Amino acid sequence: MRAAIFRGPGEITVEEVPKPEVESPTDAVVRVTHTAVCGSDLWFYRGESDREEGSRVGHEPMGIVETIGEDVRSVEPGDRVFAPFLQSCGRCEFCRKGLHTSCVNGDRWNDENGGGQGEYVRATEADGTLVRVPDRHADDEDTLEALLPLTDVMGTGHHAAVSAGVDEGDTCIVVGDGAVGLCGVLAARRLGAERIVAMGHHEDRLELARAFGATETISARGEEAVEQARETTYGGATHVMECVGAASAMETAIDVCRPGGTVGYVGVPHGVNEDGLDLFGMFGDNITLSGGVAPVRAYAEDLMADVLQGTLDPSPIFTKTVDLDGVPEGYRAMDERDAIKVLVKP
Amino acid sequence: MRAAIFRGPGEITVEEVPKPEVESPTDAVVRVTHTAVCGSDLWFYRGESDREEGSRVGHEPMGIVETIGEDVRSVEPGDRVFAPFLQSCGRCEFCRKGLHTSCVNGDRWNDENGGGQGEYVRATEADGTLVRVPDRHADDEDTLEALLPLTDVMGTGHHAAVSAGVDEGDTCIVVGDGAVGLCGVLAARRLGAERIVAMGHHEDRLELARAFGATETISARGEEAVEQARETTYGGATHVMECVGAASAMETAIDVCRPGGTVGYVGVPHGVNEDGLDLFGMFGDNITLSGGVAPVRAYAEDLMADVLQGTLDPSPIFTKTVDLDGVPEGYRAMDERDAIKVLVKP
Repeated sequence: MRAAIFRGPGEITVEEVPKPEVESPTDAVVRVTHTAVCGSDLWFYRGESDREEGSRVGHEPMGIVETIGEDVRSVEPGDRVFAPFLQSCGRCEFCRKGLHTSCVNGDRWNDENGGGQGEYVRATEADGTLVRVPDRHADDEDTLEALLPLTDVMGTGHHAAVSAGVDEGDTCIVVGDGAVGLCGVLAARRLGAERIVAMGHHEDRLELARAFGATETISARGEEAVEQARETTYGGATHVMECVGAASAMETAIDVCRPGGTVGYVGVPHGVNEDGLDLFGMFGDNITLSGGVAPVRAYAEDLMADVLQGTLDPSPIFTKTVDLDGVPEGYRAMDERDAIKVLVKP
Repeated sequence: MRAAIFRGPGEITVEEVPKPEVESPTDAVVRVTHTAVCGSDLWFYRGESDREEGSRVGHEPMGIVETIGEDVRSVEPGDRVFAPFLQSCGRCEFCRKGLHTSCVNGDRWNDENGGGQGEYVRATEADGTLVRVPDRHADDEDTLEALLPLTDVMGTGHHAAVSAGVDEGDTCIVVGDGAVGLCGVLAARRLGAERIVAMGHHEDRLELARAFGATETISARGEEAVEQARETTYGGATHVMECVGAASAMETAIDVCRPGGTVGYVGVPHGVNEDGLDLFGMFGDNITLSGGVAPVRAYAEDLMADVLQGTLDPSPIFTKTVDLDGVPEGYRAMDERDAIKVLVKP
């Protein structure tokens, strides 16, 4: 089969690799029909984080189950399924409490089981990992494109909202206008937030934020942005969603958080340790920092129900579609911000 | 009047200074009968944080109201009162939500209103700041010494427990065996924790921790301590109370926190920004960091009720008592760990 491979910063290739097969009774092999390029992929693409050269990439697979191991109960060959960016068993302490990202039997998508950006993947804990799309929706392309973000960014935006404690009638601030931030706006609206202030730097993305439910947007930078956010919220919001992960965004999130409030953070921390986190500012204002890598598997069924009933549609974040050969171009487009998020149809 | 003055690292003097007087209608002047030296005072005493030379020190006053401004309603001359380490108005948004440390009209104890370690202080927001001890208990020395920690360390230990989400039947870990950590053990027991694992480095203090309700103690250092704590809690506690503030203690707290758990932190952050916070570790395990400077005024009435009914007594943390002239010796004793906490009777 063919799959996307990381060959060094700025260089993604599509190469022939061994096709994954069922190896253990809990495995399922899935033919990937839809996947995506993730903002978190840009860190290694830009050389800002380490990744082994020659490794397979991608972690947001959706497709058709091809074969299953003998212990697999929840899916059958022919089922349309999607999977979170991390695999999880569904039966350990952490899966049962909804923290599938800490699964003791979990695994990443990797060279062994196939990166997400390829023709096939092998789910090593198929029952715990794969989410089955009901048959009546399984071939509806619009629905599938609306479901695909549940593999990562929609669940992550939702985790930011949940972690920040967003509830009915609340005012919240969303820091970041990337795919996660935009999904965060959708999530906050879905949870009933009354005022959603989206902060970002790109007018087209902030326009999408407004379409997604942001009641206000702030496009200024640095201290001016913080001042505008504080002014419009009369001193900061009690619920702030940090959807970037960069040190500057984390600093902004803490700065616009009201004393006693909570910053829900979900962006992979990047440069925060080097540049320092303003712990002293958090300390003085009793700001809670909550969140982390999003257990999107925990949220998949609830969010899917909303997508299937037509009340949630994150698919407008896909502003570009490529086939497998187009994956390198997809990385380039996201790196250069020509696309918010790239849909891949292998 | 006489008051303790900071004259540079390692040097505290007791000098003649102007006595505070009622200056505004909300003021009350209190003759200090009891106060204390705080672990947080050691940072400037050791030259590890900045403080202006010549400034008055202390922030845990208890005493008798001498004079009041015309708007003061809640106390009268002759009342026994104590006050938190920060003054607060009691009527702003933050005071009303129990976050008195973010009071918009608040103030520190300083040269203007008298540091706590002196003969008199002036409470600038007397109604919001001063806690009145009921008359029937107002002259009972044992009760007063049990109440004095409510000005700071007992409320702070309680804030750690509340911030960490400690509840009936929980297992929790308390990092730090100083006065705040020991009060944290008391607070966790008071909130119904079933297992309380106290981590520290001093056998005498850990013995007091056991007397206060710790079910286990760990005196090892570094990675060995972390391993012991993880082992005894089968993988870390969901509720961890960080009661030191040093970078190493914060790191330990995060390391012994179970995935999905919460670190309640109340120690003034010290060296954490320089040494870096393990945000990536927190991110991967979805560990929440909650807490900050403790709004001890919010907890004063509840904790006082327990002290007065005899079910809470943090006074054993005072292992040395001095008069005003003995304050320099009190700092020395705490600096050299000859005393857990020093009681001062001016």
